[in-house]
Amino acid sequence: MALGHGPMAVEVPEDARVIRTRADVARTALQVLTGEGSNALTHAHVAEIAGYSKTTLYKHWPSRLDLFTAALGALGDPQHHERTGDLRTDLVGELTMFRQAVLDLRLDRVLSAMAQWATVEEMRQIRDTINTEVQRLIRTILEESFDGAELEAVISMLAGVVACPSLMFGTLPDDDVIEAGVDIVLRARIMSH
Amino acid sequence: MALGHGPMAVEVPEDARVIRTRADVARTALQVLTGEGSNALTHAHVAEIAGYSKTTLYKHWPSRLDLFTAALGALGDPQHHERTGDLRTDLVGELTMFRQAVLDLRLDRVLSAMAQWATVEEMRQIRDTINTEVQRLIRTILEESFDGAELEAVISMLAGVVACPSLMFGTLPDDDVIEAGVDIVLRARIMSH
Repeated sequence: MALGHGPMAVEVPEDARVIRTRADVARTALQVLTGEGSNALTHAHVAEIAGYSKTTLYKHWPSRLDLFTAALGALGDPQHHERTGDLRTDLVGELTMFRQAVLDLRLDRVLSAMAQWATVEEMRQIRDTINTEVQRLIRTILEESFDGAELEAVISMLAGVVACPSLMFGTLPDDDVIEAGVDIVLRARIMSH
Repeated sequence: MALGHGPMAVEVPEDARVIRTRADVARTALQVLTGEGSNALTHAHVAEIAGYSKTTLYKHWPSRLDLFTAALGALGDPQHHERTGDLRTDLVGELTMFRQAVLDLRLDRVLSAMAQWATVEEMRQIRDTINTEVQRLIRTILEESFDGAELEAVISMLAGVVACPSLMFGTLPDDDVIEAGVDIVLRARIMSH
């Protein structure tokens, strides 16, 4: 059974070739998603760029949702800031890392594509898992100073400093905007404690 | 020239029928977008639900982007809170209206679909215009108390109270989370002025 038209198509045992095909296509699907948006994520387009046949793609990933899930698998774990113990430094550092991830991985396109697919229950779960991981460090830092409704509000507010301009306008906040956001949260904390 | 298979196909003059077809299809496209997500927004699917032929749809809206633009046209202007002059009341009121719009119009799916299409320059401009209008009142209220980087930060932070949970997790903030977000901004304002 022939899978893939890549340069290693002759020598490599079947299992390794399947793994290689899957990795190739997942990487290409992610590249299409982040470079051109999820509307470009079709079997024909990914097959052409990855250098495999459409038949191969449909065999491994029968639906566009399968292609999208494969793309998410190629994303890797989100990077987090290494904590110093200073609250302001850690919050500014983590938001700066989040901004960098939006820039490098086009995380804005990944987030909005996940929101589009979230009418499918399976994708909703994948989306929630990924976004929980994206927010993990900021939640850990903030729950040492806030709780209840205030905690939920500050998490959304600090995530919003980066996420809102990128998802709504395709722009990213400057350093001074990130710092202003963190300082607003820290001033509120001083007043309430 | 026959356009549309609707009930008024015989009696109505051509121009009125074209207008009616456009309005029917735009409404249906918006319904598909908000109900099923932009991945379901295809000519075949919208034609079936709207009761027009695929040929008619392709004639008026040659691309999926055209269908999406038609859907946005059916959205109407965003509703805003009527200002009372009390800062806290007005900010809580406006965020509550924003939350209601996300719920009623599935504004989260519209926002994330716009982000997906924003690789096309024309759509980027439409997106920026709509999102500027969505944020208009909150910006007007906040620029009376903040400026510079702090103003940009608080706008993203308060928009984020509603937008982040809805775009990242498909959930909406409770009243007490909206109030906590507004109070954090108001406490920071008292300290800095």
